[in-house]
Amino acid sequence: MVGATGYTGRKLLRILAGHPRVRVAFATSARESGRRLLDVYPECGCLRELTLISPDRAGTLAVDAIFLALGHGEAIQFLKTYPRLSSTRVVDLSADFRFRSTALFRKTYGLAAPAALNRKFVYGLTEVFREKIHRARHVANPGCYPTSVLLPLYPLLAGKILRLAGPISVTSASGASGAGATPKPETRFCDIDGNFGAYKPLREHRHLPEMEEVLSPFKSRLNFTPHLLPIRDGIFSDIHIPLARVPAGLEKRIQDTWRSFYRDCPFVKPVAHLPRLSEVVGTNLAKFTVRIEARTNTVLILSVIDNLIKGAAGQAVQNLNVLFGWPEETGLAGRF
Amino acid sequence: MVGATGYTGRKLLRILAGHPRVRVAFATSARESGRRLLDVYPECGCLRELTLISPDRAGTLAVDAIFLALGHGEAIQFLKTYPRLSSTRVVDLSADFRFRSTALFRKTYGLAAPAALNRKFVYGLTEVFREKIHRARHVANPGCYPTSVLLPLYPLLAGKILRLAGPISVTSASGASGAGATPKPETRFCDIDGNFGAYKPLREHRHLPEMEEVLSPFKSRLNFTPHLLPIRDGIFSDIHIPLARVPAGLEKRIQDTWRSFYRDCPFVKPVAHLPRLSEVVGTNLAKFTVRIEARTNTVLILSVIDNLIKGAAGQAVQNLNVLFGWPEETGLAGRF
Amino acid sequence: MVGATGYTGRKLLRILAGHPRVRVAFATSARESGRRLLDVYPECGCLRELTLISPDRAGTLAVDAIFLALGHGEAIQFLKTYPRLSSTRVVDLSADFRFRSTALFRKTYGLAAPAALNRKFVYGLTEVFREKIHRARHVANPGCYPTSVLLPLYPLLAGKILRLAGPISVTSASGASGAGATPKPETRFCDIDGNFGAYKPLREHRHLPEMEEVLSPFKSRLNFTPHLLPIRDGIFSDIHIPLARVPAGLEKRIQDTWRSFYRDCPFVKPVAHLPRLSEVVGTNLAKFTVRIEARTNTVLILSVIDNLIKGAAGQAVQNLNVLFGWPEETGLAGRF
Amino acid sequence: MVGATGYTGRKLLRILAGHPRVRVAFATSARESGRRLLDVYPECGCLRELTLISPDRAGTLAVDAIFLALGHGEAIQFLKTYPRLSSTRVVDLSADFRFRSTALFRKTYGLAAPAALNRKFVYGLTEVFREKIHRARHVANPGCYPTSVLLPLYPLLAGKILRLAGPISVTSASGASGAGATPKPETRFCDIDGNFGAYKPLREHRHLPEMEEVLSPFKSRLNFTPHLLPIRDGIFSDIHIPLARVPAGLEKRIQDTWRSFYRDCPFVKPVAHLPRLSEVVGTNLAKFTVRIEARTNTVLILSVIDNLIKGAAGQAVQNLNVLFGWPEETGLAGRF
Repeated sequence: MVGATGYTGRKLLRILAGHPRVRVAFATSARESGRRLLDVYPECGCLRELTLISPDRAGTLAVDAIFLALGHGEAIQFLKTYPRLSSTRVVDLSADFRFRSTALFRKTYGLAAPAALNRKFVYGLTEVFREKIHRARHVANPGCYPTSVLLPLYPLLAGKILRLAGPISVTSASGASGAGATPKPETRFCDIDGNFGAYKPLREHRHLPEMEEVLSPFKSRLNFTPHLLPIRDGIFSDIHIPLARVPAGLEKRIQDTWRSFYRDCPFVKPVAHLPRLSEVVGTNLAKFTVRIEARTNTVLILSVIDNLIKGAAGQAVQNLNVLFGWPEETGLAGRF
Repeated sequence: MVGATGYTGRKLLRILAGHPRVRVAFATSARESGRRLLDVYPECGCLRELTLISPDRAGTLAVDAIFLALGHGEAIQFLKTYPRLSSTRVVDLSADFRFRSTALFRKTYGLAAPAALNRKFVYGLTEVFREKIHRARHVANPGCYPTSVLLPLYPLLAGKILRLAGPISVTSASGASGAGATPKPETRFCDIDGNFGAYKPLREHRHLPEMEEVLSPFKSRLNFTPHLLPIRDGIFSDIHIPLARVPAGLEKRIQDTWRSFYRDCPFVKPVAHLPRLSEVVGTNLAKFTVRIEARTNTVLILSVIDNLIKGAAGQAVQNLNVLFGWPEETGLAGRF
Repeated sequence: MVGATGYTGRKLLRILAGHPRVRVAFATSARESGRRLLDVYPECGCLRELTLISPDRAGTLAVDAIFLALGHGEAIQFLKTYPRLSSTRVVDLSADFRFRSTALFRKTYGLAAPAALNRKFVYGLTEVFREKIHRARHVANPGCYPTSVLLPLYPLLAGKILRLAGPISVTSASGASGAGATPKPETRFCDIDGNFGAYKPLREHRHLPEMEEVLSPFKSRLNFTPHLLPIRDGIFSDIHIPLARVPAGLEKRIQDTWRSFYRDCPFVKPVAHLPRLSEVVGTNLAKFTVRIEARTNTVLILSVIDNLIKGAAGQAVQNLNVLFGWPEETGLAGRF
Repeated sequence: MVGATGYTGRKLLRILAGHPRVRVAFATSARESGRRLLDVYPECGCLRELTLISPDRAGTLAVDAIFLALGHGEAIQFLKTYPRLSSTRVVDLSADFRFRSTALFRKTYGLAAPAALNRKFVYGLTEVFREKIHRARHVANPGCYPTSVLLPLYPLLAGKILRLAGPISVTSASGASGAGATPKPETRFCDIDGNFGAYKPLREHRHLPEMEEVLSPFKSRLNFTPHLLPIRDGIFSDIHIPLARVPAGLEKRIQDTWRSFYRDCPFVKPVAHLPRLSEVVGTNLAKFTVRIEARTNTVLILSVIDNLIKGAAGQAVQNLNVLFGWPEETGLAGRF
C-alpha cells in the first residue's frame, strides 16, 4: 500500500493487519522510508515487522491489488508513472478519480485527470454502486463527508420519495483526523480543544461538487457547511430537506425505502433512535435516522460514520472485498 | 441571589464578585446552605467568605435587586410566596416569564404563570429590548439558544431585509454546561468526551416556541435542532434562511443593518470572518457573520456566544445594569 | 454474566460478543432488566438481541462459568445466596475476594468475606499467577491500579534485582471510566474536562493494601497517589524506586528479567521507548519501560494499561481462558 | 513587547491589555509583522488596533520597560544587539538568564550567556526573591515547572523544616500550551486528546538544573519527570520527599511555615484541601497542600498553577509591578 503515514494510511494498515485474506506486501512512506513500522506506529500489531519503503519502489512490485493513500494529484502521477498497473486492482483513496467529469474535477481541484485513466474508475460508494465496483478493476474511494450524506440520501432521491421544494442544506461536523496528519496551526491541540467552528461554508468545500455530481440525475441542489469538532474521529451530518408538502406516512416510507435498499448490508443501519458518534466510531458502520416536521414541511436526516473507517480506510477495504468477490464484511467486523 | 449552586448561579456569582456597583447580600443553595462559598467553590474570589443560606430565607431580606437562578416553575413559586418583591428589581434566569402568552408557556412547560405577574416581566434580550427593560422592574432573561439566534436574526426580519421562501432551519451546538449541574447519565464525562449528537430535533426543544414568539411579528417559521458538544461552554448556531431570490448587494445590506442596529453595543459584534467559539467563551460577547449562496438562494448566518455568560449570567447582569441605568458594560468587560 | 450496566460489565460484554468459545447465556441488570441489550447499548454487536434479566434470576441458571461485575460486597452476597455455584467457574471483578487475609479485607472495605469461600479464590494477575489460576475454579480479578503496578514490579522484587533504600512511590493517573458509571458530581463532563487532580493520596486508596499484600513476601513499603485524567480510558503509573546504589548494568538486568518472566506472554510488553496510553487503550496490552538515574540512585518504571480491559474485563476473560485451558489470547487479540 | 505570537506572548498581551498602569507601545512578530493584532488574535480586547511590527524595529523604540518572549538564545542576541537597553527595565521570559552559573546554562542549553549581562539579571520567582527583584533592572522569569515546585519547596528547605533521607522525586503534568505554538507532530490534537505520557524523565528536562541551582544552598537532589496532559493550560506537580523520620506536628509546622512565608502574598495560597487545576487555570494563583505518611516517612506536596500565567506571563507582569514598586496584584486580579 502506498502512503502509510497519513491518518488514513495508518488506519488502513491497522485494518489490513487483521484481514484474513490479505497479506501486506509493502507499505510506503516518503518521510519514514527505511524505518520499521513497529517504530513508527507502536500499535500496528502483527504488521509491525514490516519496513516502510520509499514510494518510488512501490510501482514496480508485483501485487494483486494496491491501495493508494496519497495526496490529491499524487495518485494521478503515480498511475501515469506505472502504466502497467492498469491491469492491477487499485483502490485510490484520494479525490483524483472521484469525478465522472474531468472538467468538474479540474475546476474543483485544479488538477488534470487523464480521461482514459479516469474512465477506468468506478465511484466506490460500496452499497450503492456494488455491482459496478464488482465488474471494475479501479475504484475511486468516496470522500468522508459525501459518504455520510449520500448513503441516506441516494435511495430516497433515486426512489423519488421526496418532492423537493428548495435546496437541501447539509451541516456536517468532523473530528480533527479529517484535517490530516500534517502539523499546522489549525490542528494544534490548543486550537481545537474546547473549540468549535465552521469552515468553507455553503459552496466552498470540494466535497460539495462530488456530492452534487453523484446526485445529478435527481436535480437537487445542495448547501454544505462543514464544522470542526474537538474529537479525533467521526462525522455527523444534519440534512435538512424542504418539501412542497409532507404526505401521510412519509416517515414510514422513508424507513421502508432504506430497509429495502440496504437489506443484507452489514454496515449500513437505518435506525429509529437519534444516533450519536459513539455508536460508530472505531467501526465501519453507517447509521442514520429521519425526523419529519409537518408544520414546516421539512425532512431532517441525521447521519453518523467514522470518517477514517466508513469514510475512508474501511470503505476502501470493503471495496477490495467487492473487487475480489469476498464477503463484504471480511476483515471489517471488528473495531479499529 | 437565589440559586447559587447551578452552573448559571455559579457563573453569576463570579461575575458579581467583580462588579463595582454590586454588593452580594446573600446567596442561597437548598443543598449547600450553611457552608461557606469558599468551601463549595474554591475559585469564587472575593465573595468566598459569603455563607450560603437556605432559599426560604431569601424572600424576606431587604435588597435593591434579586437574581433568581432556579429551576423552571420555582421562580413562579418564589414570587408567589413573596408578593412584596413585586416592587423590587428582579432578573429571573428561568423560563417562567419568558413568554408573552401564558397559554403558550403552559403548553410548552406544563406550568401556569400568573397572568398579572407575567405582565410585569419584559423579555431581556438586552440590545433588542433595552428601552423596555430600562422602564421595567422585572426582566425574564432569555434562553441561551434563543440569544444566539435572535441577536443576528431579529434586526434582519424587523428591517424587512429578507424575503423568506420557506422555513428558517437552525442547527445549534452547545457545550455540556448547558445540560445543567445535576448529575445524570447524559452529562457523565464518558458519555460526552469524543462524542457528538443531536437531541430534541426540529420542534421538540422548548427554546423553539420562545424564539418563534419573539419573531411572531415577522411571520417566519423555524426548525431548530440542538446538539451536544464535547466542550464545557459555548453555543454555535448555523442559521439557514431560504430566499425567493438573492438581490444584488444583500451581504453588504445585512452587515450594514447589523452595524446600524448594534452601533454602540459593546458586546454584540457583527464580523466579516467565520467566528469560532474560542473568540467568545469566557466573555459576554456575541459574534456573528453572514454568507450568501446565490446558486441556491440561501443566506447562512453563523453565530457564537458563551451559553453561561451572554446566554445566561452575563446578559442577566447586563439587564441589571440597564434596570439601574448604569453603563451596560459595568462589571462585564473581563473574562469569567 | 452478572452486572452488565457498569462500564466494566459493558466492556466485558463487548469482548465476550466476539469470543469464539463463549456463548453469553444471560446478562443481568438490576436497573435495566427486561430491556433488550440492543436498546441499552446500541454498540454491542451480535449480542444485541440478548434481553437483560434481573440479577436474582442469574444464580439459578445452568452455565459453565459466571462473571460477576457487581459492586463491592455484592459478590459475597451473591455467592452466599447461591452456594451451588461453588463448583462453577467464577471470575469476580469486584474486590470481595482479592485479599488472602479476610482481616485486611475487612479493615480496607469494611466487609466480611467468609473465610471458606475466600480460600477458594486465586488472585487473578494472569501472567504472574497463571499456574494457580489454571488449577482453581474461582478467580478474584485484580484492581486496575494494582495490575499496572504489579506487572512490572513483581518480577523485579521476586527476582531480587533491586536493593530498596526506602519506600516505593507510585503516582498513577486514570481515565474517568475508572470512577464508575453511577452519575455523581465528580464524573460530570464539566468537572473533568480541562482538569486534573489527585485523590486519596499516599495511603487512602484501597488499592494500596491490595498491592502491598501481593508484594508482602518482598518487604517493600509503598506510597500510592492516584489522579483523575480528562480522558475516558487508560492508566499510567510512575513508579519511583530508591536504591542504596545503582549497580552497573542494572537497566539491562531489569529488561532481561522482564523479557524472561514474560516470555511467550502475548499481552505484556516490556519496551525500550517511553510508552503512552494511546498504545494500549482499547487493547488487553500492558507496556512498561525503565529509566535509571545513578546521580540519585533511583529506578523509574513507567507503565500503561487500559483500565477497563487489562485492568478489568480483558484480564477477566484472560483468566477465563486460563481456567478452561484455552490459548490465553482467545477472543482478546482485537480492539474493544 | 517582543515576541507576541507564541502562547506566552499572546497571554502576556491579554494581561497587559487590562493593566491600568501599562500602555503597550508595540508588539513584535517575525511571522505576522504588518498585520493588525485584531486580525491575528480576534480576542485581544482593547489592544486590537495595535499593529504587529518586526522584531528588528523593537530595540530602537523608547519605552520604560520591555518584555522579551522569545525563543531560547534569542534574548541573548537581542540584548547584545541593543546594548543601550541595559538601563531599561527588562523582563525576559526565556531561559537565557535564569542561571547564576553561565557554565551550567551552557551545559544545559548549549548557549553562551555573556557573564556581564547575566549578572544584571535576578531570578524572578516573585514571592521568594521580591527584594532582589525590586532593586534590579533585569529579571529572568522562571520556568513554568520550577515555579510550581519551588514555591512550596523553597520555604521548607530554607526553613530547615525537613530532614531529607534521599532524593526528592517530582512528577509534573502540564497542559499542551507548555509545548509551544509551533505546529509539530507532538502537539497535534489527535496525538494529545485521550492520551497521556511522560517525556524527558528523571534528569533529561532542562528545568531540572534550573530547580537544582535555586535549591543548591540546601543540598537536595531532585528527580523530575514531566508528563503531557490532554488539556490546554495548567501544571500539576506531585513532590515526594523522603524523610529520616516524621516528627510530631510536622504537617502543622509545614502549613505554618508556608503561611508565614507567604503572608500578604495575594497569589500564593497554601490550602488544606487537595487542589485541582480548575481552581487556578486562567488566574495568577499558585495553590499547594501537604500530606504526610508516617508509615513510610514521606511528605507529599501537591501544587497547581496555570503554566502560562503564574508559570510565565502573569509572573512576568508581577515582576514588572515589583520593578516599578506598584502593588503586586496590579492588573493581575482577573481571569485571562
